[in-house]
Amino acid sequence: MWNNNQLSQSLGIKYPIIQAGMAGGITTPDLVASVSNSGGLGSIGAGYMNVEKLRETIQEVKKLTDQPFSVNLFTPEFVQVEQNEIDQANDWLSRYRYELNINEAPPVEKVTDENFKQQVEVIIEENVPICSFTFGIPDRDIIKKLKEKGIIIIGTATTVDEAIANESAGMDAIVAQGSEAGGHRGSFLNKEAVPMIGTMALVPQVVDYVSIPVIAAGGISDGRGIVASLGLGAKGVQLGTAFLTSEENGSPQVAKLAILNAQETDTVVTTTFSGKPARGLLNDFIKEMRQYEGKVPSYPVQNSLTQPIRAKAAKLNRPEYMSLWCGQNLRSSKENSANQMVIDLVTQVEDVINKLFQS
Amino acid sequence: MWNNNQLSQSLGIKYPIIQAGMAGGITTPDLVASVSNSGGLGSIGAGYMNVEKLRETIQEVKKLTDQPFSVNLFTPEFVQVEQNEIDQANDWLSRYRYELNINEAPPVEKVTDENFKQQVEVIIEENVPICSFTFGIPDRDIIKKLKEKGIIIIGTATTVDEAIANESAGMDAIVAQGSEAGGHRGSFLNKEAVPMIGTMALVPQVVDYVSIPVIAAGGISDGRGIVASLGLGAKGVQLGTAFLTSEENGSPQVAKLAILNAQETDTVVTTTFSGKPARGLLNDFIKEMRQYEGKVPSYPVQNSLTQPIRAKAAKLNRPEYMSLWCGQNLRSSKENSANQMVIDLVTQVEDVINKLFQS
Repeated sequence: MWNNNQLSQSLGIKYPIIQAGMAGGITTPDLVASVSNSGGLGSIGAGYMNVEKLRETIQEVKKLTDQPFSVNLFTPEFVQVEQNEIDQANDWLSRYRYELNINEAPPVEKVTDENFKQQVEVIIEENVPICSFTFGIPDRDIIKKLKEKGIIIIGTATTVDEAIANESAGMDAIVAQGSEAGGHRGSFLNKEAVPMIGTMALVPQVVDYVSIPVIAAGGISDGRGIVASLGLGAKGVQLGTAFLTSEENGSPQVAKLAILNAQETDTVVTTTFSGKPARGLLNDFIKEMRQYEGKVPSYPVQNSLTQPIRAKAAKLNRPEYMSLWCGQNLRSSKENSANQMVIDLVTQVEDVINKLFQS
Repeated sequence: MWNNNQLSQSLGIKYPIIQAGMAGGITTPDLVASVSNSGGLGSIGAGYMNVEKLRETIQEVKKLTDQPFSVNLFTPEFVQVEQNEIDQANDWLSRYRYELNINEAPPVEKVTDENFKQQVEVIIEENVPICSFTFGIPDRDIIKKLKEKGIIIIGTATTVDEAIANESAGMDAIVAQGSEAGGHRGSFLNKEAVPMIGTMALVPQVVDYVSIPVIAAGGISDGRGIVASLGLGAKGVQLGTAFLTSEENGSPQVAKLAILNAQETDTVVTTTFSGKPARGLLNDFIKEMRQYEGKVPSYPVQNSLTQPIRAKAAKLNRPEYMSLWCGQNLRSSKENSANQMVIDLVTQVEDVINKLFQS
């Protein structure tokens, strides 16, 4: 059977279909639990969560499912941003704050790994079975601690070298994130020119260079993409955009609508929202700020500076100023329950295999 | 059987594996005939050929195979380039001409569709069974004439809208060119921002919007990519980079070596060589000319201006000034006969299907 393999066995799930741990309130406990209850792997996108919120979310998920689920964390980055860069960015952003009636620029806190370390403690204390990482590989002692507790850890790679680095660091599996993927690029080795390797090219090359199971991500939205990924040598898939229009999703309705109406040519990769390249729907903010690409403060500083703008825009139904992260496979987006989505994906996979490959 | 479908039947070939019609002397009659004799579809990359060369090449291929083969043409574009733009570009290019001992800038001929029309006549006179197009859709009367002669015509699309336009114009099949693909982007509807949709996302979306067979291209280099493409709903695949290192290939040895040693992160998309976005290995020319991206004359003018530089660099084994077009799936590049390549691809496809999908 296509679904019973090294990855699904080690994660303890029925279907190697992972709902991506999208950050920013998207992955509600309902969504995560619903995917896990349907036989896939739900993921809490905890990148921006403080420890109280993370603990509360984990506990809510546990109330809703007895199946495995995962938490996705952002590996911290240490950046030095000068005050004049922040002042400059605030100047560029002032027109949005004015338009949205935001009185002042948010304070920029010192970038530390304190919250990340506390997140890891919560994951251990709450016996979360699986933890995945984006933006890089955590320190050796954190990996050691998680592994000692029997927690399965999953890294993210956008190149073969990043995949090799993840395997060397002890990751149990690796998400190979192709250029089609929505949201932030997980790249961490080539920071000047973020690698944009398409999923079709990335997955088989990664598979050839690591021995841990590879999870394909980027541009996969239905059973055809799952079969394709398995054909390329992946043991599983990770879908983000497809679950963005699930009923359980925590995105604002205006964001869901924008994605339901979007086409494959509507996305761009931009650093203007967060200081780190991410794929989302092209809108006024990105168009107007495009002139400052490469000049805005590095992540996570720019992300903090635009946070109140994005939040207020969401509140006021102003999609032109929101970060509408999504991938390039958009035309088949549908509103549905996450449970029905997983059922449909499994049916589609079996249909494709039966039609094409069963002799 | 995976290989017996609407596409292979209509093309009259055993395996729906197409060798891309790469222009510039790459697709020798030996290569084209060898692929066709092996059960795939060999293609003459005739984009830059004059009619004499095209006729001679077709006749040589016919001597070497009685199997179907195709000719790929560049649909002409009408651009207006001012003399001062040409002078400016020649100024930027003068350092390369100096270094390679090229005495003067080449004359820029008026851009017309005369050669293209003559190429079409040769294809008809020589009874070429299949003709494919890149860079756009030819005029209605040319399509009508080719179809009346029973010639099968194949278009190229990089977006769903381009695929729909190709189908409406009467194309019999369509190549869906994902962002991973090497060489020129076939885009023709969105010229300002060339669409870079990855193959994994592009193919299923195109399949859902057209009823003619879809041929997947971009990032496919082995049997895994072929199985993946079939899973996505494509009826066949087109491979370029994989055949760049075939023994029959007409590329200079230095270009083959560069590709054999390259990795997935080594390519970029640049307009600096031709005035049109194309993917190839990053080298000194691209790095140094990068500052003029978007400022060089449009294709085909810039292409003519750099032609002597590229040709002389090839002669002198100076890969740093050559256009080393290739896609993102590079790590598995191997030198082999084209015949053995097709045999290996077919074996790999059957292995993947047997291992994964046969119950």
